[in-house]
Amino acid sequence: MHVSYTALMAHTRQTQALSQVSGLLGWDQETMMPRGAANQRGEWMGAMEAAVHARQSDPRIGDWLAQLDGADLVGADLDETAKANMRHIRRSFDRSTKIPGDLASEIARVTSVSQGIWAEARATDDFASFAPTLKRVLDLKRQEAAALSDGGDLYDAMLDDYEPGMTGARLAVLLGNLRDGLVDLRDRVRGSTVDVPDLTGEFPDAVQMQLAQELAGVFGYDWNCGRLDKAVHPFSSGSGNDTRITTRVDLANPFNCIYSTIHETGHSCYEQGIRPAYLLTPLGNGVSMGVHESQSRIYENQLGRSRAFCGWLYGRMRDLFGDFGVASEDAFYAVVNKVGQGFIRTEADEVQYNLHILMRFDLERALIAGDLEVDDLEGAWNERFAADFGYAVDKPSNGVLQDVHWSVGLFGYFPTYSLGNIYAGGLNEAMRSAVPSVDSDLAQGDTRAAVGWLRENLQQYGGLYEPVDVIERATGQTVSEKPLLDYLNTKFGAIYDV
Amino acid sequence: MHVSYTALMAHTRQTQALSQVSGLLGWDQETMMPRGAANQRGEWMGAMEAAVHARQSDPRIGDWLAQLDGADLVGADLDETAKANMRHIRRSFDRSTKIPGDLASEIARVTSVSQGIWAEARATDDFASFAPTLKRVLDLKRQEAAALSDGGDLYDAMLDDYEPGMTGARLAVLLGNLRDGLVDLRDRVRGSTVDVPDLTGEFPDAVQMQLAQELAGVFGYDWNCGRLDKAVHPFSSGSGNDTRITTRVDLANPFNCIYSTIHETGHSCYEQGIRPAYLLTPLGNGVSMGVHESQSRIYENQLGRSRAFCGWLYGRMRDLFGDFGVASEDAFYAVVNKVGQGFIRTEADEVQYNLHILMRFDLERALIAGDLEVDDLEGAWNERFAADFGYAVDKPSNGVLQDVHWSVGLFGYFPTYSLGNIYAGGLNEAMRSAVPSVDSDLAQGDTRAAVGWLRENLQQYGGLYEPVDVIERATGQTVSEKPLLDYLNTKFGAIYDV
Repeated sequence: MHVSYTALMAHTRQTQALSQVSGLLGWDQETMMPRGAANQRGEWMGAMEAAVHARQSDPRIGDWLAQLDGADLVGADLDETAKANMRHIRRSFDRSTKIPGDLASEIARVTSVSQGIWAEARATDDFASFAPTLKRVLDLKRQEAAALSDGGDLYDAMLDDYEPGMTGARLAVLLGNLRDGLVDLRDRVRGSTVDVPDLTGEFPDAVQMQLAQELAGVFGYDWNCGRLDKAVHPFSSGSGNDTRITTRVDLANPFNCIYSTIHETGHSCYEQGIRPAYLLTPLGNGVSMGVHESQSRIYENQLGRSRAFCGWLYGRMRDLFGDFGVASEDAFYAVVNKVGQGFIRTEADEVQYNLHILMRFDLERALIAGDLEVDDLEGAWNERFAADFGYAVDKPSNGVLQDVHWSVGLFGYFPTYSLGNIYAGGLNEAMRSAVPSVDSDLAQGDTRAAVGWLRENLQQYGGLYEPVDVIERATGQTVSEKPLLDYLNTKFGAIYDV
Repeated sequence: MHVSYTALMAHTRQTQALSQVSGLLGWDQETMMPRGAANQRGEWMGAMEAAVHARQSDPRIGDWLAQLDGADLVGADLDETAKANMRHIRRSFDRSTKIPGDLASEIARVTSVSQGIWAEARATDDFASFAPTLKRVLDLKRQEAAALSDGGDLYDAMLDDYEPGMTGARLAVLLGNLRDGLVDLRDRVRGSTVDVPDLTGEFPDAVQMQLAQELAGVFGYDWNCGRLDKAVHPFSSGSGNDTRITTRVDLANPFNCIYSTIHETGHSCYEQGIRPAYLLTPLGNGVSMGVHESQSRIYENQLGRSRAFCGWLYGRMRDLFGDFGVASEDAFYAVVNKVGQGFIRTEADEVQYNLHILMRFDLERALIAGDLEVDDLEGAWNERFAADFGYAVDKPSNGVLQDVHWSVGLFGYFPTYSLGNIYAGGLNEAMRSAVPSVDSDLAQGDTRAAVGWLRENLQQYGGLYEPVDVIERATGQTVSEKPLLDYLNTKFGAIYDV
């Protein structure tokens, strides 16, 4: 191997290690950290970020890359893995060097404060008190995007941070088509006369956690390389052989714990499924937010909320919790997939979830493009919500202030949730065509063939291919919203008899 | 403040933060980390060590220090705090720059492997299989000491890493005197006819942990800035507002959990007691291993194993565990302080613990001086043990192979345990003279006056003074073994009626 490549990869390996340490700090902060340590932790995170940034923008990286380019080695000496590594390293190097240091510091400073201001505004239902901060964050993120975009589209530059290769224009087509189909399905479901019962009974904390532990195992989680803890907002973190999941317990609603656990298991199994040889290289992580979400969602929804798996889960829950007021597997399936009415994205069902995302996508694109002012955002939100959901937002905490993302500058992040669902739709179609036994397996609580197919056809590649490419390789199809819509129409058409 | 000092401290603050992150990695490794993550964790630790080392040996530190020296600011502009900070920074910079990079890497490499070889040798009771590795470690550590010592004594250079300012010669006097007194006391206790009962009863895991939680609180541990978990070998870690303790549970012997907890609480309370202004500066940590051990030991022994506190603890244990075969507070006090017979340092009582240390000190000094060969170490150990303890070592795992320290190159570390006990003896004498209510408080489970005195007179200073200085400021006396011997003679004379 070329000496510059060896040097580049040795340098990158330590950078990756430091990034993973930062990830562990984040996990610890949400699960283990004593309350009084918050400020000290902030200084730790800042020091780690500075150490990682210094390595990512080390001028030697530019030299090594130039030597590898100039020597015309790409075709001759460097294999597919090496090319992919260099693509990732170049992207992160370009990003680190294009953003002026002062701007990066200012973004870090402002967003570390803005989250608190958002939380306070949400608590007091007062968008106006948050608007000046949001303007500042938006202004800084636009400056950052301008520095990255080389004169191109600002929103595309933002997207590139979460979903490399994706563009706002392509997303607008995919998500626009999805919206039409979802509004139609949602209207039909609303007209249905099928009545879905509510749960009764008690769901003790310890039993929910026991079931969560079991479910992670059922979905293939490797306990030798991970652990399960509680967190206020469930998340997964880590990569390689240290990939941890969290969940939460709502004593009245066990589905919160169950489906948070399966969702995070999907994320972590993706990381655990990447080829061991990629550990501590740029290929050793899930390739994008969208592809990551495709795994969490297919575990949670297409597998975990399927009729077959619900049949098995119903039995396990009856074993563990006794009678909880649901008389049959079919009724249980309908409860799990109930299409309700509400304001909150994170509580939405499969039919309506993406409608929440699509309005955020359109609104943030308009903000970035300068077509919408922050001062008009609350009104625009409420108008769009009424149009898409058919009822009015009652207060900002149920509307424009419900999500943390914009307060910390995560523009371009929301659409990756829907993109993940779209990817999951395509993967589900391909997987069920390749593995006909999926439903009969799931009815026995056996996910091995399904998750084995995902690992084999997608997860193992980590960052080897670009996001859309790895999905299209796995599905053999161009990415489209159609499989997701077909799946949702079939599923909810049956449940609601529409 | 001088611009170079400001730059120096800003640089040091991030270095301190990264060191603290490494500390958290160590904590996580022993408490939370999944088993399969061990190798990956090794790479994280290596990357963190490299990042910290790069900052500690940054040539700009030399420039800043030179500018501060040359400007003759020490007397005029810099206060006591600044001088102490510079003393610590200079020491760490000298250390980082004096040790050749190749040697540091080789030590890291060899000691990362040698611990496993030691563990295997201990498991198979085969010193010969460990001897070649120990020779290599010893050789490397001698090279390191030579690089650090500027032609001075090698053992003093090693000591300086754990107990700055202490010398082998001064230790030899202190510990030699201690040995004479301890052997005499041990012989008298052995001749005693007093019979100490054994515990009976059951000590459930959850109840032991509940008591551990309570005891940490009783000794002043701040739960807002810490937490308690289990670990195979209890330890404390962290500093400032994130200072965590661990303990272990032996179902047959609750004293293991109780006194491990109080010991680690002593370490953590020292860290928590340091002036908040020192956070993330070189003064924000306990000043040396010996002073740290003085705090853990005085909490554990002079307070936690006192007659007064044992009276209170007896009542709490009867409440929690019911009858455990001990009829009175006095009998309980004797059980807690039983002088037994055994081979293992970590299980030794207050009378014999330091005899274990003193033989290690003499043996390792002889190894470093070249007066003892590794091949002769096992024999020398067994001979010395028989002389000091009066019975023969039965197998290497109960003898020369029992401790991990030498396998990872920790020469100069053992004597800080005894030094900590000597410091604790002096502090106990001064504290009881200043706070006459200590025993009547402890009889109520109230440690506030005692630990308040320690915080006020010692803990708050962190790294402001040199180790011996901070002890002598607190006690008003030159450091001597006499207060410890007086305390032990009085205490065990009474228990054993000798």
